[in-house]
Amino acid sequence: MLALLSNDDGIYAPGLEALVSQVSAIARVVVVAPEVEQSAVGHAISIYNPLRVTEIYKSNTLYGYAVRGTPADCVKLAVAEILDRPPDIVISGINLGKNVGDCILYSGTVSAATEGAILGIPSMAVSLATYSNPDFSYAARFAARMAELIGRRGLPHGTLLNVNVPALRPEQISGVCISRQGRFIFKDIFRKLHDPYGRDYFWLETEDIQQDANSDNDLSALKQGKISITPLKYDLTDHGLMKELKEWDITL
Amino acid sequence: MLALLSNDDGIYAPGLEALVSQVSAIARVVVVAPEVEQSAVGHAISIYNPLRVTEIYKSNTLYGYAVRGTPADCVKLAVAEILDRPPDIVISGINLGKNVGDCILYSGTVSAATEGAILGIPSMAVSLATYSNPDFSYAARFAARMAELIGRRGLPHGTLLNVNVPALRPEQISGVCISRQGRFIFKDIFRKLHDPYGRDYFWLETEDIQQDANSDNDLSALKQGKISITPLKYDLTDHGLMKELKEWDITL
Repeated sequence: MLALLSNDDGIYAPGLEALVSQVSAIARVVVVAPEVEQSAVGHAISIYNPLRVTEIYKSNTLYGYAVRGTPADCVKLAVAEILDRPPDIVISGINLGKNVGDCILYSGTVSAATEGAILGIPSMAVSLATYSNPDFSYAARFAARMAELIGRRGLPHGTLLNVNVPALRPEQISGVCISRQGRFIFKDIFRKLHDPYGRDYFWLETEDIQQDANSDNDLSALKQGKISITPLKYDLTDHGLMKELKEWDITL
Repeated sequence: MLALLSNDDGIYAPGLEALVSQVSAIARVVVVAPEVEQSAVGHAISIYNPLRVTEIYKSNTLYGYAVRGTPADCVKLAVAEILDRPPDIVISGINLGKNVGDCILYSGTVSAATEGAILGIPSMAVSLATYSNPDFSYAARFAARMAELIGRRGLPHGTLLNVNVPALRPEQISGVCISRQGRFIFKDIFRKLHDPYGRDYFWLETEDIQQDANSDNDLSALKQGKISITPLKYDLTDHGLMKELKEWDITL
């Protein structure tokens, strides 16, 4: 099994290192990840900028390829130029911080896996639901386990798995939940500040999130101490609304 | 009706100007758009950079607000800080170039409308299917017509419309097609080049696209000389796969 590993926290991120360490036991691993952190870049790709690639060594051994680009760039470039054959799986992560609900649209971690799915490769994004004192070891072992399962059972073309692991000790984790993407209500708050020259600027500070009522979504699973696995697809068509729109009087 | 207009080609883009001109006839228009072109940024938001806002004047009249950020940033900042009340509609465009199929994941134009939908505002992205000698006037009139219809009929929470107009003379356009997002097969091609110092770099050059067989998709509609309208939602859950995943033996 050939596994392409990427992330959005950058090639030196501990979450990626933990993933490399565990997935190496079950697959040949190639790391192609952004040179620097690319959080919240969504599914950006570089079309107006060239992409540079640098080989990264650790202890005199090739660790991976650092790309001066986005997570989606990394996967595209890896498949087209760096790897000698298409990978059997793309794994993105382990992200520092959960990727659930509407937020997955902004997630660079998920976008690397989405790019894998677009290219027809079984793909998975893995995130750890904490920002402080992360211990990636259990999440990495779980990711390797899932990679084995995906290798055996396959995924439909165009589908990826979005895995979120609660930041608990293994014995505190109360199982796995196959969940749907939650829907939240956002209230963006921008902090208005002044630079040393007296000019205003804004900084997106925080978002008040009001969760939807259903209990089978990704955030609810994490709150119950469960690992959340959400199958995602990149067909965004609202098939249900197509029929209604056909009844609109759309003429100019 | 209060209409928030944005785009990804930048606040000075002719496609946006055409939209302003037509939508102003049916609504109070506020323009909040990126300072510079942001194509292919996907649904990126700025969380590690401050956002600067500049008022842009044309003929001594306030034309709009230029944001040094992404299309999604523009919509967030407009709703949270710039507008005095939530807009009745978000319209993004008119993009120079079509946004169909898998490519809508990379589209900054679509992402501004997606952000509107996330915030609970009826939203629409409009693109003109050409890169050369664009005449935005018909597409702008059509967008204004659609805005009126959306105002009257509404859209479900979380759904946006992705409108693509063929670059034909009005009398050549053969109607409207309510279409689904096409699925294409990509083959990324990177050009490998050398800088003046002999170092390699890569540039994403072109993508061979093999279209899916179905005729009711967005690209097919354009090829038939029709305006394509695709309802999109940002719930990415692959509901069909949830049941199957529950049967996997997911234990560590």
